[in-house]
Amino acid sequence: MKNIGILTSGGDCPGMNAVVRSFVRTCLYNGITPFGIEAGYRGLIDGHIRPLESKDASNLLQRGGTVLRSARCLEFKTKEGQRIALDNISKNNLDGIVVVGGDGSLTGAKVLFEDYNIPVIGIPGSIDNDIYGTDLAVGVDTALNTIVRSVDMLNDTASSHDRTFIVEVMGRHCGYLAITTAVTCGAEAVLIPEVPFNLDDIIKKIKKRYDEGRSRSVVIVAEGAGSAYDFGKAFELIGGFDTRITVLGHLQRGGSPTHYDRLLATRMGLSAVELLMEGTHGVMTGWQSGKIVPVPISEVLSNTKPLDKSLLRMAEIMSR
Amino acid sequence: MKNIGILTSGGDCPGMNAVVRSFVRTCLYNGITPFGIEAGYRGLIDGHIRPLESKDASNLLQRGGTVLRSARCLEFKTKEGQRIALDNISKNNLDGIVVVGGDGSLTGAKVLFEDYNIPVIGIPGSIDNDIYGTDLAVGVDTALNTIVRSVDMLNDTASSHDRTFIVEVMGRHCGYLAITTAVTCGAEAVLIPEVPFNLDDIIKKIKKRYDEGRSRSVVIVAEGAGSAYDFGKAFELIGGFDTRITVLGHLQRGGSPTHYDRLLATRMGLSAVELLMEGTHGVMTGWQSGKIVPVPISEVLSNTKPLDKSLLRMAEIMSR
Amino acid sequence: MKNIGILTSGGDCPGMNAVVRSFVRTCLYNGITPFGIEAGYRGLIDGHIRPLESKDASNLLQRGGTVLRSARCLEFKTKEGQRIALDNISKNNLDGIVVVGGDGSLTGAKVLFEDYNIPVIGIPGSIDNDIYGTDLAVGVDTALNTIVRSVDMLNDTASSHDRTFIVEVMGRHCGYLAITTAVTCGAEAVLIPEVPFNLDDIIKKIKKRYDEGRSRSVVIVAEGAGSAYDFGKAFELIGGFDTRITVLGHLQRGGSPTHYDRLLATRMGLSAVELLMEGTHGVMTGWQSGKIVPVPISEVLSNTKPLDKSLLRMAEIMSR
Amino acid sequence: MKNIGILTSGGDCPGMNAVVRSFVRTCLYNGITPFGIEAGYRGLIDGHIRPLESKDASNLLQRGGTVLRSARCLEFKTKEGQRIALDNISKNNLDGIVVVGGDGSLTGAKVLFEDYNIPVIGIPGSIDNDIYGTDLAVGVDTALNTIVRSVDMLNDTASSHDRTFIVEVMGRHCGYLAITTAVTCGAEAVLIPEVPFNLDDIIKKIKKRYDEGRSRSVVIVAEGAGSAYDFGKAFELIGGFDTRITVLGHLQRGGSPTHYDRLLATRMGLSAVELLMEGTHGVMTGWQSGKIVPVPISEVLSNTKPLDKSLLRMAEIMSR
Repeated sequence: MKNIGILTSGGDCPGMNAVVRSFVRTCLYNGITPFGIEAGYRGLIDGHIRPLESKDASNLLQRGGTVLRSARCLEFKTKEGQRIALDNISKNNLDGIVVVGGDGSLTGAKVLFEDYNIPVIGIPGSIDNDIYGTDLAVGVDTALNTIVRSVDMLNDTASSHDRTFIVEVMGRHCGYLAITTAVTCGAEAVLIPEVPFNLDDIIKKIKKRYDEGRSRSVVIVAEGAGSAYDFGKAFELIGGFDTRITVLGHLQRGGSPTHYDRLLATRMGLSAVELLMEGTHGVMTGWQSGKIVPVPISEVLSNTKPLDKSLLRMAEIMSR
Repeated sequence: MKNIGILTSGGDCPGMNAVVRSFVRTCLYNGITPFGIEAGYRGLIDGHIRPLESKDASNLLQRGGTVLRSARCLEFKTKEGQRIALDNISKNNLDGIVVVGGDGSLTGAKVLFEDYNIPVIGIPGSIDNDIYGTDLAVGVDTALNTIVRSVDMLNDTASSHDRTFIVEVMGRHCGYLAITTAVTCGAEAVLIPEVPFNLDDIIKKIKKRYDEGRSRSVVIVAEGAGSAYDFGKAFELIGGFDTRITVLGHLQRGGSPTHYDRLLATRMGLSAVELLMEGTHGVMTGWQSGKIVPVPISEVLSNTKPLDKSLLRMAEIMSR
Repeated sequence: MKNIGILTSGGDCPGMNAVVRSFVRTCLYNGITPFGIEAGYRGLIDGHIRPLESKDASNLLQRGGTVLRSARCLEFKTKEGQRIALDNISKNNLDGIVVVGGDGSLTGAKVLFEDYNIPVIGIPGSIDNDIYGTDLAVGVDTALNTIVRSVDMLNDTASSHDRTFIVEVMGRHCGYLAITTAVTCGAEAVLIPEVPFNLDDIIKKIKKRYDEGRSRSVVIVAEGAGSAYDFGKAFELIGGFDTRITVLGHLQRGGSPTHYDRLLATRMGLSAVELLMEGTHGVMTGWQSGKIVPVPISEVLSNTKPLDKSLLRMAEIMSR
Repeated sequence: MKNIGILTSGGDCPGMNAVVRSFVRTCLYNGITPFGIEAGYRGLIDGHIRPLESKDASNLLQRGGTVLRSARCLEFKTKEGQRIALDNISKNNLDGIVVVGGDGSLTGAKVLFEDYNIPVIGIPGSIDNDIYGTDLAVGVDTALNTIVRSVDMLNDTASSHDRTFIVEVMGRHCGYLAITTAVTCGAEAVLIPEVPFNLDDIIKKIKKRYDEGRSRSVVIVAEGAGSAYDFGKAFELIGGFDTRITVLGHLQRGGSPTHYDRLLATRMGLSAVELLMEGTHGVMTGWQSGKIVPVPISEVLSNTKPLDKSLLRMAEIMSR
């Protein structure tokens, strides 16, 4: 191992820069030259690949987003695009590649590894926490804290007006963000894609709260469960509540990473380099029960992350 | 002056609780009994009026929203409603009333003062900063900082993807929040209701930026200038930009007040009581050039707050 | 199980209120009456014990500190004090007690359980993360983020002046906070009580950095490793650095708890009640590898939490 | 005016980078070449002076500290040093210089202007708010908010333990930070250098509070009024309070600037360039009653900023 490249791909998330920093430092510590590949798989095709120095890893920990940038790249899905990428990999003498991103990014990594025999390590980076094989992906803890701070702010104004707030958070197929923040923000109800719900029951529950003299209600909705605007209309029409909608959207991608995300990112960047050095390829650095575990990327991509049932129970008990 | 009541009305804003605290402390300091009126003008009609003690003013400074709550009250717009309110005012022996809120709330205060001769002082509380006669209303500085922190977060992710972000901020008739945050967040363009704009020019400007190799653009839109979603569609169709929309909405009402808002709120609560004590009525505590100035409420309501032209020039120079 | 009491004891930490909320909600869900005991063991002796209602659990999640308050209580260390406490426990018909706090608090819990046969569950709450049997105690994640945000702020000013900052963080016997934040804040060196260090080597390392043109250095010191002021003097005298000292102190105890701490606190409050219901006593709710594990309190108190060696290695690699 | 230089000097403060950005943008808008001078007056002597481009002004608004860096420079106090500086100014064809900093920095500016006839504009940048001729200096609003957030955090833990917290804030000769944050944080007492105080009275007042059942007290101390540690000892010995000390120190210099500081910095950077263009020299951009007012630097340096007496009265009424 003399040269290793790194790329960040798909939706960016806080902590990607901390991964890059850890990757650079670990390479240099081991006498390996780290290479930065710009704008995800696009950089492999365009040949935007350059050696990184120690100072490229300075002042990165606290920055959100990704300094290597990210982009969609349809061309890499074609054989022709992959061939050009391969040429650039060999032109730069890269002995391995680290890919940071979500399922889409890991699919690209799988192609490089399985079809072209390139030593590849994946690092899970995703706001939604929908990647199989890791308890948490890089970026999730920061997104959770952004949601919590935002709902705390909305509670101020909701309490002042006896209002019902519907807050839409990220999670297309995965209700993790919604269900755990429902617990930590004290929401009265939560709607997630994995579990069927009954709007009438929720409206009854909220009505009961107002009848008991409570001044506000908050409902958290994962985007995959439906549109907050549609739910809002239903709550106003059926429940007669004074309802307000907040879609947190891209705020959840931004912000300086939390301690947890910086530490997780550092661990994974370090492990990725060490796994390549010891000859392990085609795996993702999973975080399981407080340890880094290499999980075959093919296993990651062929499974769906299950919802932790104990969270449902906790949300139910806490919102009574 | 033996008894003075206070009510918060209209949309809540950060710093209303700091006004209440200052009002209570100043009353007690001067041997006056402070009364809290619940849920705005509704409390006057429902008779939800109670004396406040020193401990009611504890732990209020850092809390957003309003502990006295706020509500719309159509009944107070009727003669019948006003008569009931008057009865309750006299039943509680209130010698004066302090009203915290925006133009709508001050309209109610004007009625009490002009039609029924009740000694009234208004305190400007409004996120939009659209109240004539005061440089800043209570709540504006906190809202501005919430916007700035949010756009800083969006910049992280915008830079990572070469994206154009359109951020909608409050301001139905007033572009103050939009134009000043455009300067302090480094936005490339700003759309406000007071100034006509040419979408083509803005799109050209953003295109030029991308051509020069800049990685992102941010456009701030005051809600009164149009819908961020509509602008977003235009930017995608005409400019071909990868565009994302964020509507900050009620987040701008929440949060712990800033130092500036706490200090302004304290000054105004204190002045309101002292103005009543010295026999000045029917005025709003305006904040002008660093001093509290009593402005007749009728003057406040019959004028439109003008836009500071120097802000336009500054935004123009800074976004080149 | 009809009645269960809860007390918070020792140094307060963010998340204690989230434990109380979870405890109250879980009791009510199971038809048990929750009791709040004021000011730690002092409340047991003074008889300050009262039933809690659902509304006592409102608006607690976001609040730092502990609404049940905490206090030192020498009297409880005497047989006489313990007898009075026991009387009050039986007078209030408490069938079990939940104790939230650190080693000192758990020592009291051990007495109640072993000497007087009172069903007791401990919940680890401590900033230092020095409690054996749990990966993280309630409050640690919030403290870590407070440190990270603070050092990020100091980096701004350190870079402007080519300065060396020495930052003292909590940790009398335990360097966990220091070593992990050294990684996540990008510190150049870290001093902890568990590992001997050589000041000359550290000074040489920092000198080398300045020689390479880096603009600043940060050294994190756990309070148990020595005084930041003493280290500062050494750095100025021996290294000739322009040095500044910051002792974060009690800031690390305050602040609204993070998502992680709120979720951990909720899990532990819930588990504590359920363990009592199923007849398990004398244990602490440990958080191990992502699961709640009951750990005998006697085992907790007779062991010292070991330092995770992989953290030392990571800090070494990252600070090169 | 073809070339203008800018330097930041003395203690750094949040918003200095926003000044630099505004300076660069305004120069470029007017066809002037902006020059950056590194590390304050040292850069004038060492000849570290380089033209700045538009991209040097990117991503500066949100950054604390100063990218131009700052340093003490004894050499500039000598005739010899000044002669070298002058040579470098003329070598780079600088037609004017903008100096950002406090009284010490403005003293250097006065020398350049009065002794060597260099067109100079000063911009007040200082945490302490001790500069005559401006209501607020750049950096003050951010420092105030850092103090407020910190004391809010300490209140959490103070309330949990019935403790007295003594918080030392910046202000060697000037109690502005202390007196205004005492109002906005709800402190029970404040000690500032401008006003004599009686410790016995303060201790009596705090004792009375505890007797009334309040759970905590906070005392704010400006560093110029004495050491928080000494006051703490007195409070423990005489009052018998459980006292804790926090010295906020350099945290007050750090952090991303607030909206207010970014806007003030932008106004001042813009005005500085425009004043030079219109031929006004030797003045500081003062901020008075909401307007930029040019104040002769000699007047700034020969006067002491007076304490606003109304603040004392407000603090007195609010802490009763």
